[in-house]
Amino acid sequence: MTNRQIVLERLPQGEKLAAEHFALASGERPVAGDGEVLLRTRYISLDAANRAWMQGATYRSALNAGQVMAGGGLAEVIESHVEHLKPGDLVFADAGWQEYAALPGKNLRKLPDLKPETHLLSVYGVAGLTAYFGLLECGQPRPGDTVVVSAAAGSVGSVVGQIAKIKGCRVVGIAGGEAKGRWLVDELGFDAAVDYKSPEFKRQLRAAVPEGIDVYFDNTGGDVFEACLFAMRNHGRIACCGAVSQYDGSAPPHGPRGVPGLIVTKRLTLRGFVVMDFADQNDRALSDLQAWVSSGQLKVQEDIIEGLENLPAALIGLLAGENRGKRMVRI
Amino acid sequence: MTNRQIVLERLPQGEKLAAEHFALASGERPVAGDGEVLLRTRYISLDAANRAWMQGATYRSALNAGQVMAGGGLAEVIESHVEHLKPGDLVFADAGWQEYAALPGKNLRKLPDLKPETHLLSVYGVAGLTAYFGLLECGQPRPGDTVVVSAAAGSVGSVVGQIAKIKGCRVVGIAGGEAKGRWLVDELGFDAAVDYKSPEFKRQLRAAVPEGIDVYFDNTGGDVFEACLFAMRNHGRIACCGAVSQYDGSAPPHGPRGVPGLIVTKRLTLRGFVVMDFADQNDRALSDLQAWVSSGQLKVQEDIIEGLENLPAALIGLLAGENRGKRMVRI
Repeated sequence: MTNRQIVLERLPQGEKLAAEHFALASGERPVAGDGEVLLRTRYISLDAANRAWMQGATYRSALNAGQVMAGGGLAEVIESHVEHLKPGDLVFADAGWQEYAALPGKNLRKLPDLKPETHLLSVYGVAGLTAYFGLLECGQPRPGDTVVVSAAAGSVGSVVGQIAKIKGCRVVGIAGGEAKGRWLVDELGFDAAVDYKSPEFKRQLRAAVPEGIDVYFDNTGGDVFEACLFAMRNHGRIACCGAVSQYDGSAPPHGPRGVPGLIVTKRLTLRGFVVMDFADQNDRALSDLQAWVSSGQLKVQEDIIEGLENLPAALIGLLAGENRGKRMVRI
Repeated sequence: MTNRQIVLERLPQGEKLAAEHFALASGERPVAGDGEVLLRTRYISLDAANRAWMQGATYRSALNAGQVMAGGGLAEVIESHVEHLKPGDLVFADAGWQEYAALPGKNLRKLPDLKPETHLLSVYGVAGLTAYFGLLECGQPRPGDTVVVSAAAGSVGSVVGQIAKIKGCRVVGIAGGEAKGRWLVDELGFDAAVDYKSPEFKRQLRAAVPEGIDVYFDNTGGDVFEACLFAMRNHGRIACCGAVSQYDGSAPPHGPRGVPGLIVTKRLTLRGFVVMDFADQNDRALSDLQAWVSSGQLKVQEDIIEGLENLPAALIGLLAGENRGKRMVRI
């Protein structure tokens, strides 16, 4: 009746996340009380946001040292004290990095029966919906637009670029290394890819968007954001989705002082978003995503790692850009 | 038949604008050719943007050393070679800092007959329309919202704050010095004012917006922008209108690296705008503005300086924050 867990033993302080910040622990299997369900974790989703939660309050409160590491995942209901869930149902739950969790049932919804079930964490999960709403609602792409997406080989970026192609845009992906770039172009149908690790990055970006950028989907912040900002066309839109370049290390070196001038002159619209803001439109999004996956227009890339004990290394590697597509750990 | 002019003798290079960058010159009175009108300047509008044009291309091409200083103003048609304008008509024209200019008539429109005519440069001119569209279209204020405006005692800011009051918002103005602050509160009806020159600025701002900012109308960029960004509420809107703190001196010290994280977490929308983008809605704007002025809800503050030779000092002073409301020079 044990419950293997990964505990966030120490918060990183202006340093890169490392294995020593985590510890494997053995807790007791929790008991589901009134209105609760007992969950058995199947897959834990790894996201750059996991690291951002360690920096302070975001759209959720900050993490504390000593707690089971927070994280969402796909879990199976094994005992239920609520009407709308029964053993065997799959849910997406903020269950943490552990094998078992007892959670209130009222915020959990039974997921559709869909194979492979990992798609519920990738293209039909937070990653796919983030790509969908961020690009279409915040980016407002039009056919013929040039769309640039950073962290393009990641779980969100790889879907953003493909949806932009479906919508008739010219798509440029920014990713680290030539291999990822070739994959974006050859396998996912991006029109071009630019390597942000190259010393020639800015020149390559300019060459890839000779007429400028209409929509920039920002997953990274930092230097990549800055380079794209200068390449925007008048009236361009920037969907601000994440700032992974700022998460793993010390505080960002620069403030926003220089921004507004360019935002005025180019009449840019910047809009930050969190995918939950669009929850009332999820049905439409999922129906579109499923149609595109069925027709082969949208390829699903998943990066599945085995074993709870490998969660820290999997997150550390994700922050270093190891993954392609949606990374998750099977428990 | 002379034409007194102020020439931009030397472009400032990373330094503050000073009298030595200008020279008084005596040109020849121009002759209006086919399709042109000869204009006699009455009032020249002074705007922080005049200085921005010296930094490089913006929404207009950069200024060059040796040219008559660029600037818009209220001018009287004294000779016309086009159908739609006749001697005595008033127009708003990009006529430069000079007594006479010959310009193509096709982009000029006869202004309404309205007293005092200076209102055509302030509340019914670019300043008033900028305030109107920037606040209402980009800021989307709702009754009860907290609206903050920087350069609040300036030609745009003083109108922004008053329109926000008309729309039922709580309004905080940011301006330099206590005297301006008192004027905003006592005369214009702002709810509070904060002095950005005070060492206590950030604390005062926080105290003035205990529940955070819903709409920030940014005229300044820089430290003031940064302070407001951190005080924004979730889903807040920032109308990016200008960056006067960045215009007069060396290049801005910081880039945008730190921005996107906050924009995401707070779900902010930033939108840059230039008033010409809304030209097709000018009639509605002017009708609203006139109704508010007539009813006394909107007070018009003008700051009129005499004499073409005082144009450089008037602009230099405006960049230093000398003015309240719309500054113009009578020729």
